Amino acid sequence: MKLKVYADRMSQPSRAVLIFCKVNGIDFEEIKVEISKRHQLSPEFRAINPLKKLPAIVDGKFKLFESHAILIYLASAFPGVSDHWYPADLSRRARIHSVLDWHHQNLRRGAATFVLNTVLAPLLGLPLNKQAAAEAEKVLMSSLSTIENIWLKGNGRYLVGSLRPSIADLSLVCEIMQLELLDEKDRDHFLGPHKKVQQWIESTRSATRPHFDEVHNVLYKLKTKLSMLQPDPANGMTESRTRTPLTSKM
Amino acid sequence: MKLKVYADRMSQPSRAVLIFCKVNGIDFEEIKVEISKRHQLSPEFRAINPLKKLPAIVDGKFKLFESHAILIYLASAFPGVSDHWYPADLSRRARIHSVLDWHHQNLRRGAATFVLNTVLAPLLGLPLNKQAAAEAEKVLMSSLSTIENIWLKGNGRYLVGSLRPSIADLSLVCEIMQLELLDEKDRDHFLGPHKKVQQWIESTRSATRPHFDEVHNVLYKLKTKLSMLQPDPANGMTESRTRTPLTSKM
Repeated sequence: MKLKVYADRMSQPSRAVLIFCKVNGIDFEEIKVEISKRHQLSPEFRAINPLKKLPAIVDGKFKLFESHAILIYLASAFPGVSDHWYPADLSRRARIHSVLDWHHQNLRRGAATFVLNTVLAPLLGLPLNKQAAAEAEKVLMSSLSTIENIWLKGNGRYLVGSLRPSIADLSLVCEIMQLELLDEKDRDHFLGPHKKVQQWIESTRSATRPHFDEVHNVLYKLKTKLSMLQPDPANGMTESRTRTPLTSKM
Repeated sequence: MKLKVYADRMSQPSRAVLIFCKVNGIDFEEIKVEISKRHQLSPEFRAINPLKKLPAIVDGKFKLFESHAILIYLASAFPGVSDHWYPADLSRRARIHSVLDWHHQNLRRGAATFVLNTVLAPLLGLPLNKQAAAEAEKVLMSSLSTIENIWLKGNGRYLVGSLRPSIADLSLVCEIMQLELLDEKDRDHFLGPHKKVQQWIESTRSATRPHFDEVHNVLYKLKTKLSMLQPDPANGMTESRTRTPLTSKM
């Protein structure tokens, strides 16, 4: 039975799993679960993942959720996945686990909370929380600095000095890609000071083409849509065709 | 060269790594790094872990931090560690990764933030943040409910239906153990409704005796010290010998 991947391409960890499957030629069926329509709360999806989060997979009778656990499982269970994605060497593997563990309370918390509370909340019918955005800004900036100065230290193009990408590169870069939704000034505020991070994003994108851009297309489309909107102090966001679409720094 | 474990027994993930080493007969040297004295910020420790967090290990020339990465590495690299701690079977292993990944943004965030902002902050010279405590209370309660109803679902005594403990049980139970520092009413508020969680804590403690209690002794001592203090509305916490020491529900 073909692997099933339950995903919403607007979700960073969903994108990481989809790109991983495509790059590694894993035969799978993508099952769209739209977060904006709250489909992850449906009884059908809760039978797959009682935590009501994306992504999730079903491989035969085996159900699994949490994207890092999924990436490790796929890299281990599917023949043909190159070693660099999840090295068999224990110390190289351990360093990748170390980045993946760090990610949750740092880059993910900072990026997801900031983008939600500056851009996405109104689109999801949620209120913007300015204090949460301010706190997330600090976490995000500090996380990018840690990636620049610690995780990308050394001569490798990828995290923890690797010469080829691992599942950690894919997970973290997909997380950062949501900054595409910010306005240019904000994006530049975060990425401008982090030259190695910029190069690493580009390296990861290049190593996973054309799947990287194909899976991120939904994000690029939303970015274009958002660039057509500009703030109206009286009414919040209103459509405008007069503003030049944003140019990505990525 | 003997494995070095840099730890502060007041840190939950440090305790998990220490107990794991002791239970599995791993020959190691414990190097105390006192967080209350900010020793983790020293140049010596930053050379071990530039992220300035505990625990960390040095195995020969190999340095590693992040407790889950450490537990996985130790279970994989040291002969004689029983399979149940980190099963070779891919789907069992994947389920354990799933719990470990979930832990960061849920139980850990809830428990650590709540205990810091209700008990520990004044002892560390930090202000209490009531709003953070209120938010953490919700995360902690929801996390305990998820453990009770999802991770402990089934007939196994341990997480994800296991019959014997894994590194996930050790990590999560060590995290919960910090609730010992709360006053009895608060602890009962969290643990009272979660009978399976209570049984699971006791099972994990029993399976890792006598090391579990020996490593947690510093926590029990602080608990006794705190029980001698009672709130004075005028001056905050003041010492009192009149109050009966708290009785643990664990």
